[in-house]
Amino acid sequence: MTINGSLLVAGSEKRGTRGELYGVEAATGTALPVSFGGASAEDVEQATRLAWEAFASYRETDLETRAAFLETIASEIEAIGDELIVRAMAETGLPRGRLEGERARTTGQLRLFAKEVREGRFQELRFDGADPSRKPVPKPDLRLRNVPLGPVAVFGASNFPLAFSVAGGDTASALAAGCPVVVKAHSAHPGTSELVGRAVQRAVAKAGLHAGTFALLFDTGFEVGQKLVADARIRAVGFTGSRRGGTALMKISSERKQPIPVYAEMSSINPVIFFPNALKTRAPEIAAAFVSSLVLGAGQFCTNPGLILAVDSEGLDTFIAKARELLPDVGAQTMLTGSIAKAFCDGVARLEKHPEVRLVANGKPGSEFEGTAALFETTAAAFLAHHELQDEVFGAAGLIVRCRDLAELERVLDGLEGQLTVALHITNEDEQDAKRLVPKLEMLAGRLLVNGFGTGVEVSPAMVHGGPYPATADGRSTSVGTLAIYRFLRPVSYQDFTTTLLPAPLR
Amino acid sequence: MTINGSLLVAGSEKRGTRGELYGVEAATGTALPVSFGGASAEDVEQATRLAWEAFASYRETDLETRAAFLETIASEIEAIGDELIVRAMAETGLPRGRLEGERARTTGQLRLFAKEVREGRFQELRFDGADPSRKPVPKPDLRLRNVPLGPVAVFGASNFPLAFSVAGGDTASALAAGCPVVVKAHSAHPGTSELVGRAVQRAVAKAGLHAGTFALLFDTGFEVGQKLVADARIRAVGFTGSRRGGTALMKISSERKQPIPVYAEMSSINPVIFFPNALKTRAPEIAAAFVSSLVLGAGQFCTNPGLILAVDSEGLDTFIAKARELLPDVGAQTMLTGSIAKAFCDGVARLEKHPEVRLVANGKPGSEFEGTAALFETTAAAFLAHHELQDEVFGAAGLIVRCRDLAELERVLDGLEGQLTVALHITNEDEQDAKRLVPKLEMLAGRLLVNGFGTGVEVSPAMVHGGPYPATADGRSTSVGTLAIYRFLRPVSYQDFTTTLLPAPLR
Repeated sequence: MTINGSLLVAGSEKRGTRGELYGVEAATGTALPVSFGGASAEDVEQATRLAWEAFASYRETDLETRAAFLETIASEIEAIGDELIVRAMAETGLPRGRLEGERARTTGQLRLFAKEVREGRFQELRFDGADPSRKPVPKPDLRLRNVPLGPVAVFGASNFPLAFSVAGGDTASALAAGCPVVVKAHSAHPGTSELVGRAVQRAVAKAGLHAGTFALLFDTGFEVGQKLVADARIRAVGFTGSRRGGTALMKISSERKQPIPVYAEMSSINPVIFFPNALKTRAPEIAAAFVSSLVLGAGQFCTNPGLILAVDSEGLDTFIAKARELLPDVGAQTMLTGSIAKAFCDGVARLEKHPEVRLVANGKPGSEFEGTAALFETTAAAFLAHHELQDEVFGAAGLIVRCRDLAELERVLDGLEGQLTVALHITNEDEQDAKRLVPKLEMLAGRLLVNGFGTGVEVSPAMVHGGPYPATADGRSTSVGTLAIYRFLRPVSYQDFTTTLLPAPLR
Repeated sequence: MTINGSLLVAGSEKRGTRGELYGVEAATGTALPVSFGGASAEDVEQATRLAWEAFASYRETDLETRAAFLETIASEIEAIGDELIVRAMAETGLPRGRLEGERARTTGQLRLFAKEVREGRFQELRFDGADPSRKPVPKPDLRLRNVPLGPVAVFGASNFPLAFSVAGGDTASALAAGCPVVVKAHSAHPGTSELVGRAVQRAVAKAGLHAGTFALLFDTGFEVGQKLVADARIRAVGFTGSRRGGTALMKISSERKQPIPVYAEMSSINPVIFFPNALKTRAPEIAAAFVSSLVLGAGQFCTNPGLILAVDSEGLDTFIAKARELLPDVGAQTMLTGSIAKAFCDGVARLEKHPEVRLVANGKPGSEFEGTAALFETTAAAFLAHHELQDEVFGAAGLIVRCRDLAELERVLDGLEGQLTVALHITNEDEQDAKRLVPKLEMLAGRLLVNGFGTGVEVSPAMVHGGPYPATADGRSTSVGTLAIYRFLRPVSYQDFTTTLLPAPLR
């Protein structure tokens, strides 16, 4: 395979001329071989024009062709072999096991959407038969189907170089819906992006699809992303990243002549509630599981447990003692980029200096490219008085909020912004208290879980990876799981159409 | 029944103290008996607070209770009897037959949603079974359902005093989804609104629901509506009205701490394409059907055919000749309000004065409260050069765009904004030309119809009354038909929940 730093447009490659960027070894900050040329305004224009052209045929591909195309992308990604894992390890600092798992998730996700496409339920076909004799007016023949929105701009995510980047969940669900995709690669893993982009490009060619069905662009600043979202031919956006980035895209959309859906997954601190009896009976086990979840992947998951709510008790003290015992043995971990490591370090420093917050324990110190896990504690009163304590610190940092009682814990919940997940740790004896909170938690997050942590995100029909603003820009949707396809569809009704005129699925 | 000008809040009535407004006889501009007190900020606050309280229980009503409640609203509306029709006739100037039909549509719509609730499909229940033995990690138990968004603010529409006002489509679908509703009555038919509001209030009491499930507020300006949309407890908005009104609500939502979905149905000129062979073989019949659709209800339908696209031909001349013969016999019709009549009159005057537009024919002149039908003609080149010719003139006004050929007609389509409907008039011989346009038309509108006009909107499962911006604020939705319920729902996933904790439908 070749990484040569090309933009992938028009079924071909071309050198971007608007500046250049390098893949950087996450562990050392050293530039990796090959520079990547940034896309110009003309490149964006070409990619969206071709995506629009491709849309005409791609939207009407039969389900089998489209499903097989998704499966070919999966096979082509597998065919890259170890080069992909090695490059991704270097660019992201993530370990081999994690990246191999993520690759499996990525290809599994493509195949799951292939299955969803074949089943065809997403088309939402509906038929209301005519009744010419109905009074006072005859009943028309009405048929409905979902149609794809149009070309989709997908922004690669730093923290999932495979599963939420070039051929990740947003791309898979948009292609499954019948939408061409223009990807803006994340600058933190350009080589990984090019390898996967070439795999998608090969799949487009093998399936005999219009070359505009897929494009991959590099951006040396923010202009490519901004231009994409503002482009009239782009009809939806998939994004996973920071709150600042997501809200900037929402603003661009709202200022378009025709605003478009922006599916931005932005920020979440994923509250975990330890109920009194759970802590009383198994605080050490909970602490061990919590620490594992907190530091998984250097804490760089959207669903990382950043906020712990518990009632003041011996059980909580036992939990804290156990965490204090475990954390110092946790090694520092390479973070995705130097700037993410620095932002994490700054966020931890803000908590350390906060007058109302005290440090519980730290992991082992590391280099400037590594993150050192950190656990803090504060009181409910302080948390409620200091809104900045809700700010996500992306990485392995957690804040325990010690509440006087369940009523105060509930007030803390009332003060929270929208979240991706909320986890409840309970025993049978906590069930009634937990049950009372469930309706409130349903309003707070897209996924609720019992006696676990949100860091594992199953790719399946019943998954919701989404949640009320600001967890996502649009809390009516999910970016993981088969329901994600509905983000890129809209219903159209056909009245009294002749058989010739009807789209094939409605005949 | 009593109309006394009360706000309906907290299961009771109260006099609004923020100014007053009167129902006005549409035909004469004369104030009708009873003044209506405008709601204050405190009234809005009380209504939304109670709606939020009611949400806790209303969202979890079992399907049968909720369905029966919707049916009771329908019966209570019927029980008002002729007083409702008489008052609505006076306030809106619409004739008895239309209002009786609209009442049937309103109650039919409530009963259709009751059926939809009983069937329960909208809950989108999904079950992914656990697999504790899966490698490398056990598969969790995941279950999904849709939950209601929360209290909904509904804005009554001037042009559907029953079917899109107090207990109209937005209210029926929001209540069906499990959302309490706070209605801002349209000031053009306050008495009608109060009568229907009391019917809903009685149904709430009969069903034993929390009194905050429904409220009706009058607004002497714009403050009530603005406050409602800005209120943190309101979680979605249903609106049918002007583009200015709809975009103002979108802006308020975007500035909220937590933006909410605004389902605003705003403006559409509903292009009608007469294909060459259709005009060649049956221009006079098409003209007769067109004139009937144009002037139906004084042209005050969102789906009124305001734009006619056709290729220059003898057939088109025959169509125009026939329209010119028919229109002068069309009597002026009372419009919904004096200001709507004035806006229509101004819009017609703008077209009359437009240098690129010529008058084809007028209906009979009338009073200042009546609208006189008007049909105009322009060229494709002029239409493409003058964007203002796309502005909706709400009422019985149509603009014919004469195109040189189908290629030019297609360019006109390319220049159009999003629409609710597009109608195609064809014969067998036009089918191939029409078929080529269908993909383009699917991107342009929410409903496409053949050999008819969009003015009849069926309330059924396969209906889409929606379309790309600016036809609506959110082209992924419909405000008519059973799919409308999905506007007020979002998915939540439950992972490894115990039976006790699971919401009843997921057990």
